[in-house]
Amino acid sequence: MNRPDRPVDRDFRATLKRQRPCLLWFTGLSGSGKSTIANLVEQRLAALALHTYLLDGDIVRTGLSRDLGFSAADRVENIRRIGEVSRIMVDAGLIVITAFISPFRSDREIVRALMNDGDFIEVFVDTPLAECERRDPKGLYKRARAGEIRDFTGIDSPYEVPPAPTIRLQTLRASAEECADQVIAHLAAHGHLRPGMV
Amino acid sequence: MNRPDRPVDRDFRATLKRQRPCLLWFTGLSGSGKSTIANLVEQRLAALALHTYLLDGDIVRTGLSRDLGFSAADRVENIRRIGEVSRIMVDAGLIVITAFISPFRSDREIVRALMNDGDFIEVFVDTPLAECERRDPKGLYKRARAGEIRDFTGIDSPYEVPPAPTIRLQTLRASAEECADQVIAHLAAHGHLRPGMV
Repeated sequence: MNRPDRPVDRDFRATLKRQRPCLLWFTGLSGSGKSTIANLVEQRLAALALHTYLLDGDIVRTGLSRDLGFSAADRVENIRRIGEVSRIMVDAGLIVITAFISPFRSDREIVRALMNDGDFIEVFVDTPLAECERRDPKGLYKRARAGEIRDFTGIDSPYEVPPAPTIRLQTLRASAEECADQVIAHLAAHGHLRPGMV
Repeated sequence: MNRPDRPVDRDFRATLKRQRPCLLWFTGLSGSGKSTIANLVEQRLAALALHTYLLDGDIVRTGLSRDLGFSAADRVENIRRIGEVSRIMVDAGLIVITAFISPFRSDREIVRALMNDGDFIEVFVDTPLAECERRDPKGLYKRARAGEIRDFTGIDSPYEVPPAPTIRLQTLRASAEECADQVIAHLAAHGHLRPGMV
């Protein structure tokens, strides 16, 4: 969004915040660890006095998407709106972090297409289904297996693995803290943080 | 949005940015001077190294609300979405500035209700219709009078004057610069800027 009529533009806002804004889009199965790692990443960035915002389902579903249900079309529209809000917030100079299952490749590609090149960082939290189901922190897999929840990702609705994620986190091999470190290291290596910051 | 599970919360983000976030909601007729004054306000806040974002129709209509038309219901939904995005961005610690005609009191009240007390600052750009029509910067009044545009606010669709705006700007009596000063003075007087800043 380059707007010559706007003296206060993206570059100004990014410079003021001393960071290169981007969108860290966490994707993965329910129970994979997305929210836990996303929260750790935000805390580390905050400790470096960087300007972040974490968008999650609670914020979106009770507000911007409160008119949407869980039909296929409504889920696509929900992800589109999250992408649009992320685009605006990245334009505002923020490092935006989202944590949504976002199981369909086409939806993630819609969001990627909204962003400038290099702004979209796809973070695949690669935890096997069996492990997610073993953890089952909210008891949702149990309910889905019992037929109480329909169209549950991994059970009776597909999760399309990202073919080439920007970052792949394997939570069976690394702790949530180590995964967060991996994300921070990526941001540092790709110029989103100031040199020498981490 | 108080979230005990979120160590990086609104207060943290506001403190990092050294400001008290809020939403400056400009309302007024087409051609009243909303965008001009909103841009000046943003430039002054930026000169003070404050963290702002200006949401306008171009950004919203080409993105978040691209699925919406101009029916009465779609206009309400457009304003609601702008309110929801503003709420998120204020939560992110920003001073958010919007410039939309927003002619209906009920719509503005929807947005006010989304915000915490004191976060919603209604800025009424009070320019008489005759003067807006005389200025007609985009030639829209001429087209509306010719019947080429229907439901045009002030011509064949009402503008409901805010009964008690937080700030009232009278552009026939003060220049755009003076109006911007009035907004900045209000922010300073109500603790949104650091003492001694202006």
